[in-house]
Amino acid sequence: MSQRRVPKPVPQRIALVTGKRSVSIPHVVIVGGGFGGLYTAKRLKYRPVRITLIDRRNHHLFQPLLYQVATAALSPGDIASPIRSILRRQTNTSVLLAEATAISLPTREVMLSDGGRLIYDYLVLATEARHSYFGHDEWEVLASGLKSLEDALEIRRRVLLAFETAEREPDPAIRQALLTFVVIGGGPTGVELAGALAEIARYTLARDFRVIDPTQARIILLEAAPRLLLSFPEQLARRAAQDLVRLGVEVRTGTPVTAIAPDAVVLSQERIATYTALWAAGVMASPLARTLGAPLDRAGRVLVEPDLTIKEHPEVFAIGDLAALVDPGTGQPLPGVATVAIQQGRATADNLWRACRGQPLVPFRYKERGSLATIGRARAVADLGRLQFTGSVAWVLWLVVHLYFLIGFKDRILVMIQWAWAYLTLQRGARLITHEQRRERGAP
Amino acid sequence: MSQRRVPKPVPQRIALVTGKRSVSIPHVVIVGGGFGGLYTAKRLKYRPVRITLIDRRNHHLFQPLLYQVATAALSPGDIASPIRSILRRQTNTSVLLAEATAISLPTREVMLSDGGRLIYDYLVLATEARHSYFGHDEWEVLASGLKSLEDALEIRRRVLLAFETAEREPDPAIRQALLTFVVIGGGPTGVELAGALAEIARYTLARDFRVIDPTQARIILLEAAPRLLLSFPEQLARRAAQDLVRLGVEVRTGTPVTAIAPDAVVLSQERIATYTALWAAGVMASPLARTLGAPLDRAGRVLVEPDLTIKEHPEVFAIGDLAALVDPGTGQPLPGVATVAIQQGRATADNLWRACRGQPLVPFRYKERGSLATIGRARAVADLGRLQFTGSVAWVLWLVVHLYFLIGFKDRILVMIQWAWAYLTLQRGARLITHEQRRERGAP
Repeated sequence: MSQRRVPKPVPQRIALVTGKRSVSIPHVVIVGGGFGGLYTAKRLKYRPVRITLIDRRNHHLFQPLLYQVATAALSPGDIASPIRSILRRQTNTSVLLAEATAISLPTREVMLSDGGRLIYDYLVLATEARHSYFGHDEWEVLASGLKSLEDALEIRRRVLLAFETAEREPDPAIRQALLTFVVIGGGPTGVELAGALAEIARYTLARDFRVIDPTQARIILLEAAPRLLLSFPEQLARRAAQDLVRLGVEVRTGTPVTAIAPDAVVLSQERIATYTALWAAGVMASPLARTLGAPLDRAGRVLVEPDLTIKEHPEVFAIGDLAALVDPGTGQPLPGVATVAIQQGRATADNLWRACRGQPLVPFRYKERGSLATIGRARAVADLGRLQFTGSVAWVLWLVVHLYFLIGFKDRILVMIQWAWAYLTLQRGARLITHEQRRERGAP
Repeated sequence: MSQRRVPKPVPQRIALVTGKRSVSIPHVVIVGGGFGGLYTAKRLKYRPVRITLIDRRNHHLFQPLLYQVATAALSPGDIASPIRSILRRQTNTSVLLAEATAISLPTREVMLSDGGRLIYDYLVLATEARHSYFGHDEWEVLASGLKSLEDALEIRRRVLLAFETAEREPDPAIRQALLTFVVIGGGPTGVELAGALAEIARYTLARDFRVIDPTQARIILLEAAPRLLLSFPEQLARRAAQDLVRLGVEVRTGTPVTAIAPDAVVLSQERIATYTALWAAGVMASPLARTLGAPLDRAGRVLVEPDLTIKEHPEVFAIGDLAALVDPGTGQPLPGVATVAIQQGRATADNLWRACRGQPLVPFRYKERGSLATIGRARAVADLGRLQFTGSVAWVLWLVVHLYFLIGFKDRILVMIQWAWAYLTLQRGARLITHEQRRERGAP
């Protein structure tokens, strides 16, 4: 299984003339410009392949910092770069702004939403995950998720607007509901969001208002499982919960949400009055996976072979959030995080080049680099396997790792200055309410 | 006229106890958090007045740099700050996110869009101008104006999307139309927009695409008057036009637009095929002016007294874009620029304090500081009255002046770094296409 041979590519219309004889160049189509797709393309930079990378957005997004845009610490431009610009010097690669709607495996075609199609020799599927509301799709308009820049700006708008509306609200009960923020889901995103919200209320906005006292805002973090950060060791999760409580967050584990209303989040025993619910609970794979006819897991991810190809289609790879692969080391499925996608992208590029030369593919092995989650200002938890850190040491580690992986040199300097500024002054630079409201909530 | 006495304020419900006797504190309502309103409020910082500043947005916007957001050089957060945050240390001032819909002069009330009302002793009207399409309101969806952050992001989206769509368009005629950008209006905004667009096409995007050649994009600047930059001396306007032509902009003066269609801008003798028309031609005052019952000029601005008050209402001031005042020095109406608004804001604060003490008001005198307009990279024109500069000297001057007036220290450093980066690398950091399209144009 792990040593399969891949058929040589079908000769393409476009051919490159090298010296005296013309050589057919395989066409690699990469769907998705996130970490997986981008690192696949970059690793193939000097290979004689023709790459077309398509994405429905024009920018690569540094997802791990998205919560900082949602909480007004960074601007969208700080954590996103045009894919076109990242790959501008890579002459074997074209970037297209297009949305893939379906894959036809027998004809080796990618169908696009505008009716166009792309014929591939090799296909790398690396599309982003979407939110899953566990069958309650009606919750989507009530509780914003956090996957795209638009999501982040929407959360920023809702949170800032809640404070503004509270400043003018005469009814104390409604005012308290406006100042109650419920984050649903205690994974890294939920923990980081809750910590950042508490920071905004306690420090950033503390002196900005005349009627309300932002430090009286309630930040509630709900998790259905018995503890936070399930993918981290228990000790670190306990420390993270302590740090959150110290910041003023109400942490409630073992607390599933039964319903979300425009003016409340409903638990089995309680109704929390709030106009701002944020969703950090479930994700599912992009619907593109369903068009493959390949076996999927419960979250809609493709059950890939150990070399990340699709069953019976060794020319098609699925990676990152789209792929479900059990780590033979731990027996656990690999999490949907940036490091997994980056490693899978690089491994796929290498396998793809092996396939081009008629060599057998090599199974993917995930090298655990550790997990990091930050909790507000100067606190974090870091799990590096044998080494574990908490507090400010973990936070500096988090800072260094995230700056290192930020694609684009300028972004790194700017983000560092913004962080230094926010750290020293407790201010946040991007507190802007823009665009019409997208929600259909019943805020007073 | 210029030495009128203002009635003492009506005693308010809220009173301040100073030592043994209670003093009634006049309530000053300022409508609008632009340059005029903000500088009025700041100048009253240490005066014993109670200020309520209302704005329908939560942020003060540094309008002179808005075209840089529209052309992807800066992020919204770089040129906007929350009004609340700018005035956080000014304890005599409350900031409300609210929209004023009408003024009732007899009862001294400001009506708000949510049904609320504010009673004032003194009122300062400093609302921003809006676009005027000269009776062709249907052009608004076809040709984006540039007044707000949303406008700027919409222009950025349209311009970047036009290049992306062109990259995939097989029909050469449609492709050329997609790569044609028409800027309507040759004032400072139009000149700056056209210069920045030419720069994007010629330098920033030059190597990003594989099919189209962005340097072949047409940037057309249309002006109905016989020359550009009517508010500048003729010599400088000529130089600006030369610089634009050198950047590759087609400058057409004496060319009024007769119609705008989804796929073209129509002139009297010609039809320019384009999917991207930008409006930098006319402005008119906010509709709030009409609710005053005071005499207005053609652009809907209030014809104010020399001390910037409204006829027969010495407790109501109109300043900035809302006021029409002829400069006794030049005989010309004062232009709607930041320096006029700032000076009027400060003068109004002083007059208001005179009124509080029962002293006569002093007429406003505009001190001409000069005009600046930049034309792409390292070129500008500066008119400082006796001194005039062009080329890179004017550009450095423009840089220094704009950095100096950027409110918020952090913004200045960040903007300087972004500029330095853009200057050295010819890259633009904020090339993101976000949000659904707002337009109803027929782009293919």
